[in-house]
Amino acid sequence: VPAGADQPETSEITIALDGRGVEQGSEVLNEGVRMALADGIRLRVFGDPDALAGVAEAGAEVIEAPGEISNTEDPVSAVRSRDDASIVMAAADVAGGRSHALVSAGPTGATMTAALFALRRLSGVRRPSLAVQLPSVGHDGPPTLLLDAGANTEARAQDLVQSAIMGAAFSRAVLGVEAPRVALLSVGEERKKGTPLVVEAHGELQGMAGIDFIGNVEGRDLLAGKADVIATDGFTGNVALKTLEGTAKAVGAAVGDAARSNPVAAVGGLLLRPALGGLRRKMDPDMTGGAILLGVRGVAVVGHGSSGPAGIANAVRLAARAVSERATERTGELLAEAGATRAALK
Amino acid sequence: VPAGADQPETSEITIALDGRGVEQGSEVLNEGVRMALADGIRLRVFGDPDALAGVAEAGAEVIEAPGEISNTEDPVSAVRSRDDASIVMAAADVAGGRSHALVSAGPTGATMTAALFALRRLSGVRRPSLAVQLPSVGHDGPPTLLLDAGANTEARAQDLVQSAIMGAAFSRAVLGVEAPRVALLSVGEERKKGTPLVVEAHGELQGMAGIDFIGNVEGRDLLAGKADVIATDGFTGNVALKTLEGTAKAVGAAVGDAARSNPVAAVGGLLLRPALGGLRRKMDPDMTGGAILLGVRGVAVVGHGSSGPAGIANAVRLAARAVSERATERTGELLAEAGATRAALK
Repeated sequence: VPAGADQPETSEITIALDGRGVEQGSEVLNEGVRMALADGIRLRVFGDPDALAGVAEAGAEVIEAPGEISNTEDPVSAVRSRDDASIVMAAADVAGGRSHALVSAGPTGATMTAALFALRRLSGVRRPSLAVQLPSVGHDGPPTLLLDAGANTEARAQDLVQSAIMGAAFSRAVLGVEAPRVALLSVGEERKKGTPLVVEAHGELQGMAGIDFIGNVEGRDLLAGKADVIATDGFTGNVALKTLEGTAKAVGAAVGDAARSNPVAAVGGLLLRPALGGLRRKMDPDMTGGAILLGVRGVAVVGHGSSGPAGIANAVRLAARAVSERATERTGELLAEAGATRAALK
Repeated sequence: VPAGADQPETSEITIALDGRGVEQGSEVLNEGVRMALADGIRLRVFGDPDALAGVAEAGAEVIEAPGEISNTEDPVSAVRSRDDASIVMAAADVAGGRSHALVSAGPTGATMTAALFALRRLSGVRRPSLAVQLPSVGHDGPPTLLLDAGANTEARAQDLVQSAIMGAAFSRAVLGVEAPRVALLSVGEERKKGTPLVVEAHGELQGMAGIDFIGNVEGRDLLAGKADVIATDGFTGNVALKTLEGTAKAVGAAVGDAARSNPVAAVGGLLLRPALGGLRRKMDPDMTGGAILLGVRGVAVVGHGSSGPAGIANAVRLAARAVSERATERTGELLAEAGATRAALK
């Protein structure tokens, strides 16, 4: 992974962590915080000081944030009206320069909204985009980045192009892919396949500076390692991601059911189980740490609400790595190089 | 399954079968044809008489069709210009009343185009929609119908509504679901979630006569049996379907790899294998026979190019069942009842 010139040491990186929204409760949060602190990452955790006593004891700084935003609220009005909510205070901490990056396992909509309002968009970016790392089930390479996974359901061609560029910058800076292969998600490989949106984005990406655009890929290619970055609109990306997760879960559960269906199968399942460890780890959402909101002036990681301790720690580590690798600055540079700033002004 | 008043006997049903496009070759086609003939279904098969000698011997009628449309050609211009192509002749056979339904395992685009041009649209239908039966991996109910799987990538809200209605009619008539639960595919369950297209279709489906509309479902619900009919646009539906197929394949392959990774795991895999038969059958695309083009004046089944004999036979059986259950007529009736004809004229 190439490092930036003014790359800070991990021990100099401070993460603002939303101390609310971890579904599995404060013990899980505490354990995750301890793991991240052990890496030398500093943490400022926002929430209920009583619930966060263990976090403070472990060495994190705790800041009282009385308010909470639930996932049934409208994120925009909740974030606008609730200055004392933990996610809003944590985002303000990053905007104010006291922390370097934002991490939350709370509601995705509130996290994205708080990050966007506090950090603002990168110059020339029309809409931020949510990037997720897909499990490398069908290959042994680095994770494929799928974006937008749901930040913006009403996309223009320019949003797809910017997602592609921002994904490439992140893949290079943080996932260590030197020359990320960039693709558009469509219904066929030919350049004329897909919605007018996709066809237009395809035309703009062809020959773009700094981007290794390999054309369209299909839904069946998401896990195959054919591309390092796959760009789509937030509606399609969200449907594809949840379809992928739901299918993997259903197939996994069906294999488990089969292994419980009779005694011989049960023995088979026991003998096979250790060899499935690699697959299980690849499918474990805790391993990647969460999604990244790209296109804002700063680093914001959206952890899974269902995170275990490793999920919390890996979300914090992902944010710290993005800071130390200057992901935001390099995203801005690639956007400028690719001429996306100009495209944004069209 | 309720039967129509003038339901024909199976032995009176004639299927026009495209004798080209079966990737696995004429032996597979012959075997599939024999299986369907054994059910008492009559077959008229269009293609190369030499390659179809076995089919003729088995008792099907063979009609020479010298032309072939490949999946690299533009379907519209190919179908328009090639009267002698097997798929065009088979579709004309249905339009002319010599056969009751069309079945092809050739290129999907050419089959849909030939069916649409020859059979025309049902009254009030703006765009035909391609319906696929999803594997019942996560439940034991009848297959969930997903549509549109790719007939029309530029959808309006009305197209989603008509897909929902046509899917409900087909689920009731052919899959035997008495009161199909109908849903829209979106990025959240709330009625305001999704693109403007989805939100508008949601509003139109609420309270619609003859439709049990249960609201939005997400990508993770496709295999869960939460709905009997899931409507979406052809772009999203195609991406979701291929994501589902690709994920199931990747996870299955990873389990297979694990079972080959060491001798103990191999024994485990052998012991577990018989119990996985049910899952394997559920995932086998040959079991459902293929996709159905809804919204045309007649029955058209699009089989998988990779069909084995059972896939060919089941595609023919699906078409015959749609004829005997008056699927087309009942689709027209439900469209009228639901007021979709009026919506189509808006």
